[in-house]
Amino acid sequence: MSTPAAPANLMEAIVSLAKRRGFIYPSSEIYGGLNGFFDYGPLGAELKKNIRDCWWNDLVRRRDDIVGLESSIIMHPKVWEASGHVAGFTDPLVDCKVSKQRYRADQLFFAAVVVDGRTIGHVSALESEDTAGELQAAAEALKRKLAVQGALAPVAPRDLTQAAPEEIALIPSPATGEPGSLTAPRSFNMMFQTNVGAMTDASSVAYLRPETAQGMFVDFKNVTDTTRVKLPFGIAQIGKSFRNEITPRNFIFRSREFEQMEMEYFIHEDADWARCHREWIDWCRNWLVSIGLPESHLSLYTHPKEKLAFYSKGTVDIMFRYPFGVQELWGIAARGNYDLGQHAAASGKPQELFDEATKKKFVPHVIEPAVGVDRILLAVLCAGYAEEDVTDEKGHVEKRTVLRFSPRIAPVKVAVLPLLKNKEALTQRARELHTKLKRRYAVQYDDGGAIGKRYRRQDEAGTPWCVTIDFETVEKDGTFTLRDRDTMQQKRITEAELFALLDEQVY
Amino acid sequence: MSTPAAPANLMEAIVSLAKRRGFIYPSSEIYGGLNGFFDYGPLGAELKKNIRDCWWNDLVRRRDDIVGLESSIIMHPKVWEASGHVAGFTDPLVDCKVSKQRYRADQLFFAAVVVDGRTIGHVSALESEDTAGELQAAAEALKRKLAVQGALAPVAPRDLTQAAPEEIALIPSPATGEPGSLTAPRSFNMMFQTNVGAMTDASSVAYLRPETAQGMFVDFKNVTDTTRVKLPFGIAQIGKSFRNEITPRNFIFRSREFEQMEMEYFIHEDADWARCHREWIDWCRNWLVSIGLPESHLSLYTHPKEKLAFYSKGTVDIMFRYPFGVQELWGIAARGNYDLGQHAAASGKPQELFDEATKKKFVPHVIEPAVGVDRILLAVLCAGYAEEDVTDEKGHVEKRTVLRFSPRIAPVKVAVLPLLKNKEALTQRARELHTKLKRRYAVQYDDGGAIGKRYRRQDEAGTPWCVTIDFETVEKDGTFTLRDRDTMQQKRITEAELFALLDEQVY
Repeated sequence: MSTPAAPANLMEAIVSLAKRRGFIYPSSEIYGGLNGFFDYGPLGAELKKNIRDCWWNDLVRRRDDIVGLESSIIMHPKVWEASGHVAGFTDPLVDCKVSKQRYRADQLFFAAVVVDGRTIGHVSALESEDTAGELQAAAEALKRKLAVQGALAPVAPRDLTQAAPEEIALIPSPATGEPGSLTAPRSFNMMFQTNVGAMTDASSVAYLRPETAQGMFVDFKNVTDTTRVKLPFGIAQIGKSFRNEITPRNFIFRSREFEQMEMEYFIHEDADWARCHREWIDWCRNWLVSIGLPESHLSLYTHPKEKLAFYSKGTVDIMFRYPFGVQELWGIAARGNYDLGQHAAASGKPQELFDEATKKKFVPHVIEPAVGVDRILLAVLCAGYAEEDVTDEKGHVEKRTVLRFSPRIAPVKVAVLPLLKNKEALTQRARELHTKLKRRYAVQYDDGGAIGKRYRRQDEAGTPWCVTIDFETVEKDGTFTLRDRDTMQQKRITEAELFALLDEQVY
Repeated sequence: MSTPAAPANLMEAIVSLAKRRGFIYPSSEIYGGLNGFFDYGPLGAELKKNIRDCWWNDLVRRRDDIVGLESSIIMHPKVWEASGHVAGFTDPLVDCKVSKQRYRADQLFFAAVVVDGRTIGHVSALESEDTAGELQAAAEALKRKLAVQGALAPVAPRDLTQAAPEEIALIPSPATGEPGSLTAPRSFNMMFQTNVGAMTDASSVAYLRPETAQGMFVDFKNVTDTTRVKLPFGIAQIGKSFRNEITPRNFIFRSREFEQMEMEYFIHEDADWARCHREWIDWCRNWLVSIGLPESHLSLYTHPKEKLAFYSKGTVDIMFRYPFGVQELWGIAARGNYDLGQHAAASGKPQELFDEATKKKFVPHVIEPAVGVDRILLAVLCAGYAEEDVTDEKGHVEKRTVLRFSPRIAPVKVAVLPLLKNKEALTQRARELHTKLKRRYAVQYDDGGAIGKRYRRQDEAGTPWCVTIDFETVEKDGTFTLRDRDTMQQKRITEAELFALLDEQVY
């Protein structure tokens, strides 16, 4: 009965639905917004909470080897010196001295314009879906402008981090179109900086954490000293992190304030780290499928050895096919004992455990699965969004928009609909069921408009089931109509069956 | 069988237990800590999550008139200009020019030392539990030091904000003990400041939110435009806020990074605000009781009319009797339409609703219940903590420490204990029950040590029930021993009865 079709511009459709139905708003919108910051509206806040809760329940509560943690967002600045973030958590930036614009050097591309083997000038372009094409077009325009005859060679784009010092003066600024105003790239630290206490000087500088992971390392000894964990074990945390991205983009995919779910899984220094690493890659992938992401959208990317940090034993990213490309969703890194070692050296406090078998102390190694809540949320929006032509029993075709969320994370689990608004027998029974359901589940009561219209409203919110209370319910056997969001099939079930369905599917 | 007794220094006992059992650690402890910041360990993270979830479920999911929101921590700086925080969210600070120390003027007290009606000097002291006593002692010491004869008058303490300009030069600095180095009080803004984007100048200044409430006001139109809410309705939010307190104190009661649960309940401009205000005071008080705070520790404080802001119609605080005094736990403020009005004026975007009855537009008024998660957590720790002398069946007296958490918020709901560790029949059944329970609940499996020792461990963690699997379980009727934390009574129950108990008590 339905013909799913992806809209021409899926991202546009998702951003629009997210705003229209109260999933995601631009932050501070009445003041023109703030680039890289977003608010989650009523449906978005529920969806986000459900993603967090599924992860926490599966990882912390349902496993016996992982404990939770909530460390502070502002930590001692020495944490970020030891972790390497103060020195190394940087982006290369380029200034245009004329326009005062700033660019990320690795997102600003340039190419020499070569005609018959002779360089007649340079062109530049900001990274886009077709950077090479834009540079080629700019090269042709320059050739025309300078009225140079001959064969234009295909451009060979490089970014500004690859420019030789003497080239930089020749590259036109994207702001002015003229060369001579760009500076050489320099490092820009992406941590947000603030001052703690009454003084505003170097002694009071502190940072908003760019990741939650360091909390687990800094509290490692506190956790092992105050709980009964034994290797292998993990410490998990959910919380906000902040990165002063120069070019936030792709909606909530790369924002400046975001939420992470990270876990540090500590293993013996002699443990089979590669096997443990694989097990966590599998666990993470299965977990994504359990909350409704289709296998078809997921893939793995193994970081090449030569691009790894010196301490890293290997990193694999679970990639997701977003509308704007295949992008990193979940990074699973084997980090050796680098972080605990750094903090031991910087703090002077050993970060060791005692091995009863060998009677020796050692620093545990770690496997770190790190994922962003906002990226998962965007992935479930993208994978779940569909526009369908639906033919009703009278043969009329209409469009429906549906979000196929897994029942585990759907913001509303069940909508309770009395068939008619003005029949007290129906509304009373519907209210009664609604009250009973909402002790355990997020549910909605909706008596506004025709049933078909109410179904559409719930489809757009991603509600897996609608329950309609009709005359059969109150005059005959007490059963309701259960309508499935995805198949649009209806069947009659009892209250006990409804609760059993929810108990099975919502956990 | 038990004799509860409050320890001599309850706060010390709580801070120590909180550390020892992994509820709360000082932030960045291996680097010496960071004043005013705390981390929540495994038990603390669970307890905090449970408090949040109870509030969210009761308010957002179980009521039909309240929706959730998650706005960003960093908002547009104009939000804080409109709200009045940039100009007015300040503490009065005093500098000591010699020691470079800073003090909150309202926490730095002084008094003239008067002998036989003649002022012979001044003394000062930082606010403490007995500021007047300290000042009196300092006055006596000064009299002795100056060898003045006569009758010393009782000191009349005032704080630095009440000092006349000519007095300030006469007041000794607490750091040096000498007068002449203190400055006049000046305003210090308590918002943490940072810079967003690649520039670090006035144009990029932004603030960490000092409250979550402004998110609800700034998104008011987004929520009314994208949901089906109708007056009266509320918008609720849980999230981190930050205040650069000069003197954080009383453990997690006044910290620099904390978590708020705030709700804005919007009502018609002609609605009976006083009644609505009272209803919310009652709701909040009942909710605190529902998560286990005893009525006996709660009281109400009505802010005197003359101390209210000009727009405020009334504020009532629910006070809690902490070991360090009766302090504000939950503020319920009737704020009129001040905030929406401010944002309408500053943004140029009307913040109005249309009244179908009168056909007129109006700006809704608001009732705001605002509470801190950390303060609630500290309250349940304080109210729940007890040390008891327990007499066992052999007549031995031992001490037990217990946290009497409500089952709603207890970090662990049930501990599953096989009577013996080395009997597979027992451990297998215990594992089976444990697995079944943890699909729904946070539970623990513990087979380490004597049963009595395991009970004590769970008492200290606040676990309401322990279930012991013994030979009767596996050889006879399948029932377990259920041991109640508070009464220490044991009874035999079936698995179905256990699940029914949990379903009733944990919600």
